[in-house]
Amino acid sequence: MTAFDAHDRALAEQLFADLQAASVDTVGITRESYGPGETAAARIIADCARRHGLEVSYDAAANLTVTLPGRDAGLPFLACGSHLDSVPQGGNYDGAAGIIAGLMALIRFRRDGLTPARPVKLLALRGEESAWFGKAYTGSRALFGRLLPADLQAQNAFSGRTLGEAMAACGADIEQLAAGEPVVTANQMSGWLELHIEQGPILVAEELPVAIVTGIRGNIRHRNIACIGEAGHSGAVPRNLRHDALFATAELITRMDACWKEMLDRGEDLVLTAGVIGTLPEEHAISRIPGQVGFSFEARSQHQATLQRVHDRLQEECKAIAAQRGVRFEFDALLKSSPAELSRDWVDSLERIAADMKIPARTMASGAGHDAAVFANMGVPSAMIFVRNQNGSHNPHEAMDMEDFFAGASLLHAALAQAAQ
Amino acid sequence: MTAFDAHDRALAEQLFADLQAASVDTVGITRESYGPGETAAARIIADCARRHGLEVSYDAAANLTVTLPGRDAGLPFLACGSHLDSVPQGGNYDGAAGIIAGLMALIRFRRDGLTPARPVKLLALRGEESAWFGKAYTGSRALFGRLLPADLQAQNAFSGRTLGEAMAACGADIEQLAAGEPVVTANQMSGWLELHIEQGPILVAEELPVAIVTGIRGNIRHRNIACIGEAGHSGAVPRNLRHDALFATAELITRMDACWKEMLDRGEDLVLTAGVIGTLPEEHAISRIPGQVGFSFEARSQHQATLQRVHDRLQEECKAIAAQRGVRFEFDALLKSSPAELSRDWVDSLERIAADMKIPARTMASGAGHDAAVFANMGVPSAMIFVRNQNGSHNPHEAMDMEDFFAGASLLHAALAQAAQ
Repeated sequence: MTAFDAHDRALAEQLFADLQAASVDTVGITRESYGPGETAAARIIADCARRHGLEVSYDAAANLTVTLPGRDAGLPFLACGSHLDSVPQGGNYDGAAGIIAGLMALIRFRRDGLTPARPVKLLALRGEESAWFGKAYTGSRALFGRLLPADLQAQNAFSGRTLGEAMAACGADIEQLAAGEPVVTANQMSGWLELHIEQGPILVAEELPVAIVTGIRGNIRHRNIACIGEAGHSGAVPRNLRHDALFATAELITRMDACWKEMLDRGEDLVLTAGVIGTLPEEHAISRIPGQVGFSFEARSQHQATLQRVHDRLQEECKAIAAQRGVRFEFDALLKSSPAELSRDWVDSLERIAADMKIPARTMASGAGHDAAVFANMGVPSAMIFVRNQNGSHNPHEAMDMEDFFAGASLLHAALAQAAQ
Repeated sequence: MTAFDAHDRALAEQLFADLQAASVDTVGITRESYGPGETAAARIIADCARRHGLEVSYDAAANLTVTLPGRDAGLPFLACGSHLDSVPQGGNYDGAAGIIAGLMALIRFRRDGLTPARPVKLLALRGEESAWFGKAYTGSRALFGRLLPADLQAQNAFSGRTLGEAMAACGADIEQLAAGEPVVTANQMSGWLELHIEQGPILVAEELPVAIVTGIRGNIRHRNIACIGEAGHSGAVPRNLRHDALFATAELITRMDACWKEMLDRGEDLVLTAGVIGTLPEEHAISRIPGQVGFSFEARSQHQATLQRVHDRLQEECKAIAAQRGVRFEFDALLKSSPAELSRDWVDSLERIAADMKIPARTMASGAGHDAAVFANMGVPSAMIFVRNQNGSHNPHEAMDMEDFFAGASLLHAALAQAAQ
């Protein structure tokens, strides 16, 4: 079931421990994008790779590259990896698990004397988390020359330093990046395979160690929809004369929940969230009919058509409720992020390999964004492996079992071995 | 249809204008409880009463009393009136309409040479609005010796002056009030009839000038019910594993709205309001499943049994939703205020008189509280007449048509004439 022996396991555990030690914060661990914790993590990975006879370099975006040469250096290379950075006071596995799994695979290939047809690379990407500069996937976007000059001016939320300054301090070539010149192009790559902890509870609930990711959900969002009714004395206005903004909003949310269930029953991929709601503090009172309620709305799906259907339905339901209750809904700008389709071929072969290796796995969509979405949207055949993890991510309580990690890493190793031929 | 002639109308309009002029604020009008605007209003009413040959006095609670003597001074007296004070920057009709209507009735009796069997009094009560000292119905409660020493220590929300100090400055006998000694007892009164503007939109919607009030709604309230679910990444947790505090709360509110409709269809008297709702600002985010939502809940009804049924239903629905969605509801203390039943005899006779006078009227419950509730709960047969009013109350935009006022005042006049015999 696994490619890894006790020696490999000890090495992987030591790497996680070293990363943790190098980035421990008062609570949790902190690896700032283009900051000291991230750089220390890169050094730990690079040192280990060199010790095991792998080639190490840094690209023009300051990402770390570890290379196992192939028989034909001219063939598009196969890559695996994930990101080095973490959110402030986050956990040790978000990002790092994919880098250590990739490194273990390359070390194992090297130790087994495997020389693949094409080069196999580990990309330890920087700057994936938006918590620092308000921009996500910086390392992978820079790789493809897709950073904007404005991105390089974005300021660190804590230090105020610009992204360009921070990247330059890590050795990045800012002129090249600002010019939009790519470090690699999609046709120089044969594929991207990223292992990552699951950031939701599905694998824990279903008692499965790993999942094969079929796509990365896009989203549609309204930061604030205002429901505007009519305020009034709570005792003096009967039901038939009310224009209660909260009863209207509650009905809308309840109807959208029913719509969600219907769409799931039809087999669509969808999650709905209203993360923020509030009456107006300067107006609300226990004995006042709420004249206005504001709330956020977000839908995520692997499929653009589903997102469109949800948004259409939202507007229909608002219209119906507005007519029925004498309120109106005012929408702010619609924010959109496109879904990323992962490679059907990759998913099929990962499913076959998992079955052969008797690794229990299911397919699922990723609700959170990942560097893999950048690779996929650039046209690189991409896939992801999720590893079971408790307590979500972006917090110090991430909890990945090492057995689960090695199940995922074994799947990654086998899939790379097959794809590198 | 009306007892009043052009002369009376001019007088009433002048009184409203004088009150307004004496209490005009930057926006709206302000007659502070036991403050200058209220005292000026009392003086205007007293002066007019004296000019028309009526007896004027102030009681030990500093309320103004205008008396038309009866043939038998020993009989329990009949009283009408309302309150002199207003909320800060309120309207000119809330309270004052009932006092001017009562004064007009007494003036008319005097001018018509009517000497009733029992004394008929106008009580121009002070301190009805809770906006100033956080205590409502101070004048009527003091009348019956029902102020607590702690009430007298309550501080004005704006000046910090205590209620006791403010009442003493108006000439009240604080020692008597603190001792709980009544100014009048319920058996010294044959009835209480209060005209007031409607504070809701029903008469406007139904195009009726007046209503006869059948009861004053009591209420049950929770200032804050917390729905506690589980926060999580909005993209990564599927519907079946969510414990979304907002979806649960929205369903609860929607179910209580359905319950409200059912109970109305069964003929129960009820209004429901959730005036305040909010996710926690320190935790909420567009892409975060809300782990906690807080909201207020209020039910008002003329009937205690209805309030109990609503509260039982609220708890049942919370229990069902909690079980279904894996959330829990935490209730703060239940606050209660009892309904006040108005006199069935008064209501019947007011309905008959309105029909005889061809004044279009309907019966309704009062959702807001009134001094009449104090009289009714003390055992005085009590009734209220509502006059159509636009734009609600407690704001500068109160709008009562003088035609409607005279319809209500005529009904008051006729009912007093009948009851005083």
